[in-house]
Amino acid sequence: MRALVTGGAGFIGSTLVDALLARGDDVLVVDDLSSGKRGNLAPGVELTELDIRDTGELAKLTAEFRPDAVYHLAAQIDVRTSMADPVHDASVNVLGTLSVLQAARDAGAGAVVVCSTGGAIYGDGAPLPTTEDEQPEPESPYGMSKLAAERYTRFFVRAHGLPALVLRFANVYGPRQHPAGGAGVVSLFCDRARTGQRPTVFGDGGQTRDFLFVGDVARAALASADRLLAGELAGEVFNVGTGTESTITELAATIGRIAGLDADGFAPEFTPARPGELRRSCLDPSRGLAALGLPSPTTLTDGLAATWAWHRARPGQL
Amino acid sequence: MRALVTGGAGFIGSTLVDALLARGDDVLVVDDLSSGKRGNLAPGVELTELDIRDTGELAKLTAEFRPDAVYHLAAQIDVRTSMADPVHDASVNVLGTLSVLQAARDAGAGAVVVCSTGGAIYGDGAPLPTTEDEQPEPESPYGMSKLAAERYTRFFVRAHGLPALVLRFANVYGPRQHPAGGAGVVSLFCDRARTGQRPTVFGDGGQTRDFLFVGDVARAALASADRLLAGELAGEVFNVGTGTESTITELAATIGRIAGLDADGFAPEFTPARPGELRRSCLDPSRGLAALGLPSPTTLTDGLAATWAWHRARPGQL
Ligand SMILES: NC(=O)c1ccc[n+]([C@@H]2O[C@H](COP(=O)([O-])OP(=O)(O)OC[C@H]3O[C@@H](n4cnc5c(N)ncnc54)[C@H](O)[C@@H]3O)[C@@H](O)[C@H]2O)c1
Ligand SMILES: NC(=O)c1ccc[n+]([C@@H]2O[C@H](COP(=O)([O-])OP(=O)(O)OC[C@H]3O[C@@H](n4cnc5c(N)ncnc54)[C@H](O)[C@@H]3O)[C@@H](O)[C@H]2O)c1
Repeated sequence: MRALVTGGAGFIGSTLVDALLARGDDVLVVDDLSSGKRGNLAPGVELTELDIRDTGELAKLTAEFRPDAVYHLAAQIDVRTSMADPVHDASVNVLGTLSVLQAARDAGAGAVVVCSTGGAIYGDGAPLPTTEDEQPEPESPYGMSKLAAERYTRFFVRAHGLPALVLRFANVYGPRQHPAGGAGVVSLFCDRARTGQRPTVFGDGGQTRDFLFVGDVARAALASADRLLAGELAGEVFNVGTGTESTITELAATIGRIAGLDADGFAPEFTPARPGELRRSCLDPSRGLAALGLPSPTTLTDGLAATWAWHRARPGQL
Repeated sequence: MRALVTGGAGFIGSTLVDALLARGDDVLVVDDLSSGKRGNLAPGVELTELDIRDTGELAKLTAEFRPDAVYHLAAQIDVRTSMADPVHDASVNVLGTLSVLQAARDAGAGAVVVCSTGGAIYGDGAPLPTTEDEQPEPESPYGMSKLAAERYTRFFVRAHGLPALVLRFANVYGPRQHPAGGAGVVSLFCDRARTGQRPTVFGDGGQTRDFLFVGDVARAALASADRLLAGELAGEVFNVGTGTESTITELAATIGRIAGLDADGFAPEFTPARPGELRRSCLDPSRGLAALGLPSPTTLTDGLAATWAWHRARPGQL
């Protein structure tokens, strides 16, 4: 199988590429390396350095590669950047996604998996754990651009019969994550643990997130493409999360414990809350787990152990 | 008062400019003349030919002009164009709107009126007449880009305190309308009547629209800016429509009658329905009429009479 991965040099994308290679797929990565790194990719992986907004070049490249599946992960992912420069955010996330959808359609791709966000798309008042039936109410430009990208994806399904679906990720963490973006907190805390510093917590630390291990995201993306290639699930939108809320204070404590630090030495330093941050966030993943035939998500302890192992072994990488 | 009108050389924009001049406002039009015409503007009206997506130039111009009110009408308005080239549509309607919002904020504008669509933003299943409480479900890329622009507008209200509101227009008709876009049907039918041809009706002619006279739109926009300047209504979204449904067949008959044609000579020619067209559309304008203190909308007969008078007098213009 031939797989095109946009944003494949990034955190989640490179994990997905590893999973594709492991099952023997032929992979082409398209990434402008704005936040991704060549070093995230296994040696020998084909990488075309290209901005997905270059519709002409992307269409040409995709037509030449003739992918069975397109995994669209390239994005501007930093909420704070989206607030400071919403034009740039919308340009990459809205126009860029349209460019990918067009290229995939014109190349006759059999599956298009579009990566969106659950954490930034549901509003603060949404019931928890939040299901896909909840009306999105994004509060940040990042959430808005991702929601628009979702709508355009469903338009391409309706109007052009594109076999595409949308996955809304919770707060993803794992090896290779850079500190920007929603789940950067795991990466930051692990780095603090490694360098003997205490974690910084904004607000009272009681805010919650649904922390999802990156391996589960890769599994969900692969299963999505397989179902689409089998002619199923086009137009669907699935949450990908754990259904479990964790507070930031709990997260810090768990990381400290896994890193073998004593509770006092790794006690949080509290600083004022950041305006506009969600208080609670947790996705109900049931629908997607069932439709995609996925196992239960990795537990936080197991996922953090794998993440910590990576941080400890590669001190120069952050 | 100083008023900046984006898209001011277009159909609705030029009508608004006339209304602003009539009450003595100082007007600057920003328009790239992609569909608008200099000839739509009264002699002496200041026009800067500029693409609103040029964020740097637009910010500079707006800062220099220091508008009290910004009326944002510039847009790609053709639904079919948006389906064929959604990247272009989103570029103008999403990035362009963000560019205008930023420029207005940085220039300290006291009122920003953002023009959106009711006809293309509510889904086909929405109850009629449709209120603002109905969850938008746009079916075309045009509706999606306009909805995204609305969300960004409300973000600027929340995050930057921008005194902005959104108006969702029904199908607007009147003098100077060019045939593209939703309410082009009035313009097309008037032109047929003028040239002795019969009107073409897609489908059975029983599809309905809420036809709104352009003068009512200008009034709503002026009242919106006045309220915003008085510190009221920031963040609101109002329908601007008549609350009355008319079928396309009725519309043709009324235009024929006003033009003094006999019913047989102006009988519709029926052709197959266009895929993806809404069956029924009608906005409930009550909330906006009350909040903005507006009179009842112009009746269809009065509005069509004014429109027909323009068509008859300016045969070369279409
Ligand atoms: N990390 C999370 O918690 C999380 C949560 C929800 C959704 N997501 C989504 O998952 C996807 C991957 O996110 P990630 O965490 O791996 O982030 P990342 O920043 O590591 O990966 C994004 C990749 O896209 C590339 N890219 C950015 N703009 C590009 C452009 N214009 N053209 C080509 N490539 C471009 C970057 O160089 C980077 O390699 C994104 O779509 C993101 O919105 C992530
Ligand atoms: N006509 C309707 O029935 C209707 C219905 C709902 C909403 N609207 C909205 O009302 C507004 C005005 O529509 P209209 O019917 O007068 O259409 P129009 O095409 O006559 O006016 C749009 C104007 O914007 C200008 N423009 C387009 N792209 C531009 C760009 N990138 N930079 C600068 N100027 C640009 C065009 O030259 C034109 O003068 C639009 O926002 C439209 O979406 C219209």
